Amino acid sequence: MDKIWNKYPEIKQELVDVLNLMKSNVKCKDKKIENSIIELIESGGKLLRPAFVLIGSKFGEYDREKSIPTAAVIEMLHMATLVHDDVIDDSKLRRGQETIQSKYGKDYAVYIGDYLFCICFKILATNASLQAIKVDSRAMSKICMGEVNQLNSRFSMNLSVKDYLSRISGKTAELFSISLYLGAAECNANTKISRELRNIGHNLGMAFQIIDDILDYEGNDESIKKSAANDLKQGIYTLPLIYAYKKDKNAFDNILAKDFYTEEEVSKIIELVKKNNGIENAKELAEKYMKKCFKGIDRLPENEYKYILRDIAEWLLLRTY
Amino acid sequence: MDKIWNKYPEIKQELVDVLNLMKSNVKCKDKKIENSIIELIESGGKLLRPAFVLIGSKFGEYDREKSIPTAAVIEMLHMATLVHDDVIDDSKLRRGQETIQSKYGKDYAVYIGDYLFCICFKILATNASLQAIKVDSRAMSKICMGEVNQLNSRFSMNLSVKDYLSRISGKTAELFSISLYLGAAECNANTKISRELRNIGHNLGMAFQIIDDILDYEGNDESIKKSAANDLKQGIYTLPLIYAYKKDKNAFDNILAKDFYTEEEVSKIIELVKKNNGIENAKELAEKYMKKCFKGIDRLPENEYKYILRDIAEWLLLRTY
Repeated sequence: MDKIWNKYPEIKQELVDVLNLMKSNVKCKDKKIENSIIELIESGGKLLRPAFVLIGSKFGEYDREKSIPTAAVIEMLHMATLVHDDVIDDSKLRRGQETIQSKYGKDYAVYIGDYLFCICFKILATNASLQAIKVDSRAMSKICMGEVNQLNSRFSMNLSVKDYLSRISGKTAELFSISLYLGAAECNANTKISRELRNIGHNLGMAFQIIDDILDYEGNDESIKKSAANDLKQGIYTLPLIYAYKKDKNAFDNILAKDFYTEEEVSKIIELVKKNNGIENAKELAEKYMKKCFKGIDRLPENEYKYILRDIAEWLLLRTY
Repeated sequence: MDKIWNKYPEIKQELVDVLNLMKSNVKCKDKKIENSIIELIESGGKLLRPAFVLIGSKFGEYDREKSIPTAAVIEMLHMATLVHDDVIDDSKLRRGQETIQSKYGKDYAVYIGDYLFCICFKILATNASLQAIKVDSRAMSKICMGEVNQLNSRFSMNLSVKDYLSRISGKTAELFSISLYLGAAECNANTKISRELRNIGHNLGMAFQIIDDILDYEGNDESIKKSAANDLKQGIYTLPLIYAYKKDKNAFDNILAKDFYTEEEVSKIIELVKKNNGIENAKELAEKYMKKCFKGIDRLPENEYKYILRDIAEWLLLRTY
């Protein structure tokens, strides 16, 4: 488990319970399936989303019988989307480990993702409210729509900042947002506070994703170049590029929309993005979301979890600044 | 809509309502997604599963507010599995129309399948009980497990009749079974009757799938040969072949497990299956399930729907006899 959780022993212990609940729910006759999912559970994601559920629930009448399953479901929904994303992106590695699709084949990965979705709803039906199922299925539709939208806009030179924001809103911000929200709402937190948490999650997710996309252009090491090249190759244009392209379309026109980029071409694109203030402009927008996020946290009622949430947001958002 | 429903105007009208509910639930901002799903809804499947839900619900206190959404969900779950199956099988056509994966690409089809799953659970959360969601998600896990199992046993010469039956139990029988069951249970039918309906659905589904697999070997026309060849190429061995192989392993050993079959080889395999009583033995087993199915129907309380169910079962099972 990520060492960040050592600082918050209560949350850490609850996250252990979440992982155990997940593991006990994937038990099935087919040991190959079971083991491949257990590997995935143990592969060491940051567990941000389930932690957000737990933190959110502390703002209501904390009830572990509701919070732990809700947190488990959110993490499994996230895992299901990752498994299917890896199919689409043909990714070989995830969190440093071989992906399901690379290890067992795409066919297998499609069904494992489906199976994870099913387990989510099985846990929800056993432990949560119809309201939570509604929120979860709506969020998941939004995430799917975001993914399809990303597919449809590949290699599109008409991509606007608005399109980009709506895409990442489905991709990252939605799950952050419902994690905090559902944690609170399922534990009967005050409606105003639940909504505040939902907005905090949204703004945190937006800032986090923009920063993630900036890192692809800002860093100098090889892995970062690779990641930028990978997105470019797939025709996924992120905020720094969109801003820079808007400023100097001609400069980009001959170099984009290729199936393959040489190292020189990637360096050239990164340089063009920097030259046209793509990174600077993207940072400004990330900061707007960050400010909204921290202001939201400030408005939360006083308790230790407010400060844990602030800590984690700082850890996620200030890592590069 | 299949002309079979003209015989039962009440069910037909309710199926129209089911289709309309499905269409209204797939409305979304992205018109490309919406239209591709509407096409799928209108592509003219037999609508057996939603009809089973409706018929099942007549054995309780029929409540259209529950039956129509439950029927819509079952059909959409079925559609979602078909979309993902087409991705796996690389199918170009389904019900005579181009598949989503062929028309829009595999990536798109993976997400459309996921999106359909989400809509199912959204409809369930709005209209059904937690119990129904539990039954649905369990059934879907079973279906996924069946699919994975089919993948894992491809090209396996150790396939037993038991393995085959457990595979088709997840593939076809499970949805038939929960359709009749959920229709009844959601309308508060007597527990004994709901269970009887569940067993009828299971036996009907088993017989139906075995007969479907027999048809691949029995028919003489080209389309049937193609279908048998397609299964063989994918290493999917069905009941007639399993029985025949058990009887004369040596005859098959040189001819199976190929990536490609010439027309002669397919004919040769079909001939070997026939020679070794594969079809005969498979028919005997299908008849056992058929008998159980019809006996179950006989035990249902007297009402017109009992006879409609018998009619449909006869239509499905006696088509080749």
